[in-house]
Amino acid sequence: MVNETQHTCSASSSSRSDGSSSGSESSKENSRCSTPVLDADRHERLREKMRRRQDAGDKWFSLEFFPPRTANAAVNLISRFDRMGAGGPLFIDVTWHPAGDPGSDKETSSMIIANTAVNYCGLETILHMTCCNQTKDEITGHLQKAKRLGLKNIMALRGDPAGEEWEEEIDGFNYAVDLVKHIRNEFDDYFDICVAGYPKGHPEAESYEADLRHLKEKVFAGADFIITQLFFRPETFFKFMKDCQAIGITCPIIPGIFPIQGYHSLRQLVKLSKLEVPQEIKDVIEPIKDNDAAIRNYGVELAVSMCRELLDSGMVHGLHFYTLNREVATTEVLKRLGIWKEDPRRPLPWAVSAHPKRRVEDVRPIFWASRPKSYIYRTQEWDDFPNGRWGNSSSPAFGELKDYYLFYLKSKSPREELLKMWGEELTGEESVFEVFTCYITGEPNRNGYKVTCMPWNDDPLATETNLLKDQLEKVNRRGILTINSQPNINGKSSTDPIVGWGPSGGYVFQKAYLEFFTSSEIVTALLKVLKKYELRVNYHIVNVKGQNITNAPDLQPNAVTWGIFPGREIIQPTVVDPVSFLYWKDEAFALWIEQWAKLYEEESPSRMIIQYIHDNYYLVNLVDNDFPLENCLWQVVDDTFELLN
Amino acid sequence: MVNETQHTCSASSSSRSDGSSSGSESSKENSRCSTPVLDADRHERLREKMRRRQDAGDKWFSLEFFPPRTANAAVNLISRFDRMGAGGPLFIDVTWHPAGDPGSDKETSSMIIANTAVNYCGLETILHMTCCNQTKDEITGHLQKAKRLGLKNIMALRGDPAGEEWEEEIDGFNYAVDLVKHIRNEFDDYFDICVAGYPKGHPEAESYEADLRHLKEKVFAGADFIITQLFFRPETFFKFMKDCQAIGITCPIIPGIFPIQGYHSLRQLVKLSKLEVPQEIKDVIEPIKDNDAAIRNYGVELAVSMCRELLDSGMVHGLHFYTLNREVATTEVLKRLGIWKEDPRRPLPWAVSAHPKRRVEDVRPIFWASRPKSYIYRTQEWDDFPNGRWGNSSSPAFGELKDYYLFYLKSKSPREELLKMWGEELTGEESVFEVFTCYITGEPNRNGYKVTCMPWNDDPLATETNLLKDQLEKVNRRGILTINSQPNINGKSSTDPIVGWGPSGGYVFQKAYLEFFTSSEIVTALLKVLKKYELRVNYHIVNVKGQNITNAPDLQPNAVTWGIFPGREIIQPTVVDPVSFLYWKDEAFALWIEQWAKLYEEESPSRMIIQYIHDNYYLVNLVDNDFPLENCLWQVVDDTFELLN
Repeated sequence: MVNETQHTCSASSSSRSDGSSSGSESSKENSRCSTPVLDADRHERLREKMRRRQDAGDKWFSLEFFPPRTANAAVNLISRFDRMGAGGPLFIDVTWHPAGDPGSDKETSSMIIANTAVNYCGLETILHMTCCNQTKDEITGHLQKAKRLGLKNIMALRGDPAGEEWEEEIDGFNYAVDLVKHIRNEFDDYFDICVAGYPKGHPEAESYEADLRHLKEKVFAGADFIITQLFFRPETFFKFMKDCQAIGITCPIIPGIFPIQGYHSLRQLVKLSKLEVPQEIKDVIEPIKDNDAAIRNYGVELAVSMCRELLDSGMVHGLHFYTLNREVATTEVLKRLGIWKEDPRRPLPWAVSAHPKRRVEDVRPIFWASRPKSYIYRTQEWDDFPNGRWGNSSSPAFGELKDYYLFYLKSKSPREELLKMWGEELTGEESVFEVFTCYITGEPNRNGYKVTCMPWNDDPLATETNLLKDQLEKVNRRGILTINSQPNINGKSSTDPIVGWGPSGGYVFQKAYLEFFTSSEIVTALLKVLKKYELRVNYHIVNVKGQNITNAPDLQPNAVTWGIFPGREIIQPTVVDPVSFLYWKDEAFALWIEQWAKLYEEESPSRMIIQYIHDNYYLVNLVDNDFPLENCLWQVVDDTFELLN
Repeated sequence: MVNETQHTCSASSSSRSDGSSSGSESSKENSRCSTPVLDADRHERLREKMRRRQDAGDKWFSLEFFPPRTANAAVNLISRFDRMGAGGPLFIDVTWHPAGDPGSDKETSSMIIANTAVNYCGLETILHMTCCNQTKDEITGHLQKAKRLGLKNIMALRGDPAGEEWEEEIDGFNYAVDLVKHIRNEFDDYFDICVAGYPKGHPEAESYEADLRHLKEKVFAGADFIITQLFFRPETFFKFMKDCQAIGITCPIIPGIFPIQGYHSLRQLVKLSKLEVPQEIKDVIEPIKDNDAAIRNYGVELAVSMCRELLDSGMVHGLHFYTLNREVATTEVLKRLGIWKEDPRRPLPWAVSAHPKRRVEDVRPIFWASRPKSYIYRTQEWDDFPNGRWGNSSSPAFGELKDYYLFYLKSKSPREELLKMWGEELTGEESVFEVFTCYITGEPNRNGYKVTCMPWNDDPLATETNLLKDQLEKVNRRGILTINSQPNINGKSSTDPIVGWGPSGGYVFQKAYLEFFTSSEIVTALLKVLKKYELRVNYHIVNVKGQNITNAPDLQPNAVTWGIFPGREIIQPTVVDPVSFLYWKDEAFALWIEQWAKLYEEESPSRMIIQYIHDNYYLVNLVDNDFPLENCLWQVVDDTFELLN
């Protein structure tokens, strides 16, 4: 049995070697990776982040979710991860349901949902895992898979007994402590381990005191921190915390908060957890049990006041929320507590994946800017990011485009909604121009529906793109069908709310970028115009067959976003890379068919219009290299239309 | 025997794979090296550069030197390489003198002079090599050594016979063609090979026609281009060139130009080369043979007019100058022809080494800015530049500081001159402040001598540093003894004559930098002042014992020079690196003793003053991270002095 001294010692020594970059781990890092390490954060494990936040006096929160039942619910849950992730949780956790095939590759399994949260949403994630009624091999298999997927944190639980009464299995996993020991035995210090604490004692424990002793065993076996079962009164937690300290439990203890969101969900939870709801709460709730809004308001009030008391005590640094996969109540509590970050600092202009291997990634091609999950999916097999950065794509191969139907690449919107937005029936290329224009302007289309997504953009226009709205509207009306753009930026503060990213005190820069589909007639004129801009504008023009026209020197990447920070090397997170553009081209053209044309019957005129565009249009990208001057790309487009008239 | 078709073919296919960066060689390059390739030039071999310049219609020149006899002459010759290298020769070549132990490690050997030109002066260099009277093993040994040192080009010559009359050796190297074949056999296509052509026929050849046939043999055996013996009339060259073409010699033929620089040198050369001086030249020279200036003027006139005729013919793309190690005449001819580049474009802010391994190097610590040869020397054992760039120095080890006396690290100035500049006798620290101040202002010191170099700067103040002259003068007078500095630059054109570098159309940036020695009293005040600038100014402060004070985050390098270019990644050639600063510290402190203190007698007061500074002063560097604002470092220094008063 690993005793606490040993464990604490190994944890703190690993923290020391991470903290000082002259240590051997970092110097190895440095010789392998020439890129600047943006944030200590990107190399820290969860327990270190927790410690650092506590030392800095930063209050934090975390969010618990359960796996969804259907693929559609999974798509929605992932959008919720993105939205709630924007508030800056320290981590999220995903529960484990033995009945739901939790370790499988199903898109709704606990394992795959946690994988998506880490790799695609960039969230630090704890995967729950229960051990009873499972063999050692099954459990090891799950842990190995979790490790392979880049998961670094496990919540070790016993799980519910198979029958009514609990019976010990000889040589089996009977208690959470067995799972903690197993993880430490088999995976050494790889995982951060969380265990559950019961402020009122576990319902099956002989006594409150006996339960505390079990908790101490779990911690001494190697757990890094404790999350508690929900409770209704702050005093319950304070007493529990003091009792834990009294018997020598020194690791962080995070209170589990359950904002009451409805009468029935409360009843069900209470039944499952065998907790008793205090009379004063029952007294309020019973009279309003049919008024959902009233109960939710009461639940928010109650949670806010309890959380305030917890935080004000100085004993609590983080709050763990049982969200029940709902968004409104928890978000409101967090906002009222002032710990929801309305504008979290972005370490890079795109969301950094939380996969330990990908944390050092610091440059990506601009093409996937609106489809970051697709980019991560297509590069998931890359063994490493050459030189710690994405670099030139000539050696690593992009994943195939065969998996359109993977839930996290599908549109969030159902077919009927897409038809309303993109047109039940198209009458010509101009109807397509209209769809693009409505998406840009935010105005309803001719049938009164707003176009809130496009095959290339699953979300409404980014704030930054809004800066270019008027010009984008003008060109889309005329058949320059824009799918990506950024304005030029000449040294704005890194804390700028719209274009800022990276550590404070820095300056961010961009070259103007414009990417669009357009007809071959327009391309012919454009190419004539581009001759005048030869030294200033770099272009790549390609059709679905791969005919490619470019003036990029030696197929080198062109940095289009970069930042200069105090005491650091230059960071250039976004590039226009000629080689990856040809992989993106396949995806960008395929989206016409997969997401749009297929909404219509085969052989229907609407489908044939999209097919025509797919077959005949060109995908164009333009970079204005003269970032300190006024963006010339609009002039390029104007000149092109002038030439055509 | 390698026939011409094969050879041409291998040359052109290698050119193709270099030209297109999607080729396998480059993609390997790309996955290994994440840095942008600044110029195709940096990866080209000499024959490719020659071809590209010819295709582009760019006229070029090259310069021939012979190895010096003494170490002092070697120091001077290397300064000459630097000065004449600034005019932009396509290459220089170093002759081979069998009597002077040309392949040895002596500082005056042909091998070491060529090594210095390539590695320390960044000049593309051809090493001559003769083969007669040498064994195969000796020659292979020389070639292996040349390859090891980074030399890529050999001029294959027979050499002069040992006795009066030429006798063939059985199985030996009797002709230059034997050496060409040997190089191709043993080293495949590694070297570019140059051979000599004799526009009047080799003096020992049976006939002009027989000599042309020998030349053709050398080319068909694998030579890449021809440099001709000197000649006096353009017609001589035109006829020779046509005759070569007529028998199928298609490689470049570069005319050798000999500007007449004096009566005696002309007579000696004519005797050695067995050439006849045309009567019309003799007629002019004989009457003025005792007037060196008149002869040189005539020689320049003659060379300019002949070179013009050669270039105007359209048959000649490059001119090769026999400099006789002299500077004035050749430089004047080149300037009058308009092919001397007064402001050669710098690919990086520092001179790129011409060693094939080092060509990809694109970041260096700023500390060695004025001692680039020392930096190259101390990093010569680095096997490669991690990720194609210098990166963090934590793994590679800097060379020891034991070789102060190596000729290329010594001061160019003799002891007497240094004493005049730095003081025959010092009376206190203030006399040292005065020396620094005089170096900055360019004014004579109290004994009337200008201070044109310092232990840390072998040359007068750089143009860029001149921008800071007034402020530097002020602080040096008060004991902030500056040894390195650069102004902040916020996006000047990459073609700016003072601070520009890299391809045209780009923008260059700098953070303000200041490095100086100063007393511990000033350091104490400075540290207090720096607290106010904590987020803006990064500092490293160290004394000779290595006591080190810094606010650099995680010992990361701070980029202080960078450039943004059309269609390329960001380039950041200069960094302040905390790790290498500690290696530089040893060198910077040692220079006080090695170059300055040792000018004086042991135990003399002057020596003790320098020793005191060495033992007690701190070396400080400061970076102002806010490059778009006015440089705050002068304010920091002012505040420091204010605090002291």
